[in-house]
Amino acid sequence: MALGTSDVDLYESEDPIWNPALLTIPIPGIRKMVNLASSLEDVIHLSIGQPDLPAPKNVVDAAVEALQAGQTGYTMDAGLPELLESLSTYYSGRYQRPLTTENILVTTGATEAIYLALTAVAAPGRHFIVPDPAFMLYAPLIRMNGGEVTEIRTRAENNHQLDPQEVIDAIEPHTHAIVLNSPSNPTGTLYPKETLEAILEEAAYRGIHVISDEVYDHLIYDGKEYPSVLSCCSDLDHVMVVSSFSKTYSMAGMRIGWLIASQAAIKKLRRYHMFTTTVANTPFQWAGVAALRGGTEFTDYMLAEYTRRRDRLVELVEQTPHLTGYKPEGAFYLFPSLPEGVNGTNVALRLLKETGVCTIPGETFGNSCNNALRLSYSTSLANIEEAFERIIPWMAKQDFS
Amino acid sequence: MALGTSDVDLYESEDPIWNPALLTIPIPGIRKMVNLASSLEDVIHLSIGQPDLPAPKNVVDAAVEALQAGQTGYTMDAGLPELLESLSTYYSGRYQRPLTTENILVTTGATEAIYLALTAVAAPGRHFIVPDPAFMLYAPLIRMNGGEVTEIRTRAENNHQLDPQEVIDAIEPHTHAIVLNSPSNPTGTLYPKETLEAILEEAAYRGIHVISDEVYDHLIYDGKEYPSVLSCCSDLDHVMVVSSFSKTYSMAGMRIGWLIASQAAIKKLRRYHMFTTTVANTPFQWAGVAALRGGTEFTDYMLAEYTRRRDRLVELVEQTPHLTGYKPEGAFYLFPSLPEGVNGTNVALRLLKETGVCTIPGETFGNSCNNALRLSYSTSLANIEEAFERIIPWMAKQDFS
Repeated sequence: MALGTSDVDLYESEDPIWNPALLTIPIPGIRKMVNLASSLEDVIHLSIGQPDLPAPKNVVDAAVEALQAGQTGYTMDAGLPELLESLSTYYSGRYQRPLTTENILVTTGATEAIYLALTAVAAPGRHFIVPDPAFMLYAPLIRMNGGEVTEIRTRAENNHQLDPQEVIDAIEPHTHAIVLNSPSNPTGTLYPKETLEAILEEAAYRGIHVISDEVYDHLIYDGKEYPSVLSCCSDLDHVMVVSSFSKTYSMAGMRIGWLIASQAAIKKLRRYHMFTTTVANTPFQWAGVAALRGGTEFTDYMLAEYTRRRDRLVELVEQTPHLTGYKPEGAFYLFPSLPEGVNGTNVALRLLKETGVCTIPGETFGNSCNNALRLSYSTSLANIEEAFERIIPWMAKQDFS
Repeated sequence: MALGTSDVDLYESEDPIWNPALLTIPIPGIRKMVNLASSLEDVIHLSIGQPDLPAPKNVVDAAVEALQAGQTGYTMDAGLPELLESLSTYYSGRYQRPLTTENILVTTGATEAIYLALTAVAAPGRHFIVPDPAFMLYAPLIRMNGGEVTEIRTRAENNHQLDPQEVIDAIEPHTHAIVLNSPSNPTGTLYPKETLEAILEEAAYRGIHVISDEVYDHLIYDGKEYPSVLSCCSDLDHVMVVSSFSKTYSMAGMRIGWLIASQAAIKKLRRYHMFTTTVANTPFQWAGVAALRGGTEFTDYMLAEYTRRRDRLVELVEQTPHLTGYKPEGAFYLFPSLPEGVNGTNVALRLLKETGVCTIPGETFGNSCNNALRLSYSTSLANIEEAFERIIPWMAKQDFS
């Protein structure tokens, strides 16, 4: 008996090429909006999450010098010794805790560091706690490796602060790690020292890991001191901290980040890192050394500039009908809410098509915030003003009831 | 009843931090030898797998220009449009087959491309065929994702040629992909067009993928034409090709590689790539554009230089007692055998300690070649001569019977 067409179809479709684990990786909402925007004219972007200021001159000069000195071969697997040395000196001084070069792994941006940290510890049967909203890499990477995720919701009404008791109450017998990100992308929220201490103390007691994404650790407003997980934890055994040069020194396209952890953890992750990217690029590790040795002139200037933008953006959001804002204390994002039940994705799409202002829908960052929009102020004050000259009258015309 | 100490130990050791999948990643043999060598004086390295020639001036100049023009932000996720364009033009011309920019993804070196390709398709229940010896990333990455590996052994007596019939005979009902690497690291063997065609034809007929690592595609000696999988396959649906600038233009530390596949596959891999590294660095993508547009002066010079080294190394190995060599046709490695049953790792360790010549033991590259040594000739002729002035008398004194 011959096979029918439907049988053949069955055979041909039964073996898709991809590892089913990749199904956890969503189409990034940012990419969808930016792609749509690229087909339109006269778009103002409040979408992009990278600094618009040029990289500092001493950083560019150091990269040029390294290139011209023939520094174009591989470094050691953990990173350029001079960069590891500079980072350990820098961190030891900043948080008054001893860190050696063996506590650090240099990576291709913070992204590779997050990838390594999460995929190296997530596995079936392990439970993770992640804030919601949060940067869109965390939950998919955990699920990709069979881990299970509980999201702790935060709200604009509360400046998107994370309630440490809610985190602690979500701990289960099989909880393996808690992911933190302060200042937060997409909310710009800075967790106070008390939040970190409460979570870290409970986590250490229960043997739960804390993975802390601190890439915005220099974008802290109003003269506040930055509470890092490194300044709040008693030992490093259950802690991994991720950071990079991207936001602090406008070096996003140079792709140098790092991971700080116990020496035993770094040893394991070095080996994994050899299989993901071998090593980070060499010339921009030299640029990173120059950045760390270059004083605070650039970061002071940057902070003053972003503070002006944040202050103005907070005012403009307050004047915008239907949006509930707050005053973020870090990073360069504000994540205001539309009224409960309003679909932020539809609003973002209509806003882009009808006014040419590109924002990122809240659902990109978690399941609880479909009614929010992420506004990035890594763009000029002039652009921010112009964007709200379009947004405010458009919002005034909407009826979301 | 109180718990005994042994019970407490059980509790404390039952939940190791790491994803068990990482157990597939071995401690790299290269790293062990190089670390040991770094504690010794007067070492000659026949170990390193990166070009010793400096990167060409036009490449360095293009990187400097990009940096000074402020090209330090992210590119699009698939890569810099100008690089995608240059690569598609270059490949379309080289192999007379149409390739669009949508067939290419720019990665952090070939390593990330290999990582993406293998971990995106390997999964439990899927069988892979890999040559043995082979570059040490392939089998661990497949096993890390639950895949099963059959290794096809090659031998120095046969110039380490891969027998296509042995590959075809190893195909099972659940075979998912075949991994190829020509010219091969560690053997320098170039597969003839007939080998590729036989494997590709069978693979296409059976719906099996071919993942081809072609990073040495410009290190082809004796004026031979290079048979790429791209010049032998009828369509791209089941083919992924990996390459990079590292070996061709001495750009290893600049970390720019790429993956060529069907447009549908690239779309999927772009999304995954956003989660591993976001994007490759921007300035060295511009350097890559300059490399592709820069003519063949550098590669011609490099090839002449490596040809001289290979010819001399082949002669020297022939004069060395206990070593069986052959004439490699590509890359910058020779993988001679010691007599059957001799432990190459012991020999490499003693050779390093007693003569100061650093080679890489064969077991680093697979299960079948414990009696081999990898010799890299990406070092000067003077170093190669000096190394064999030490190796030949040392070998003459050994009794391996």
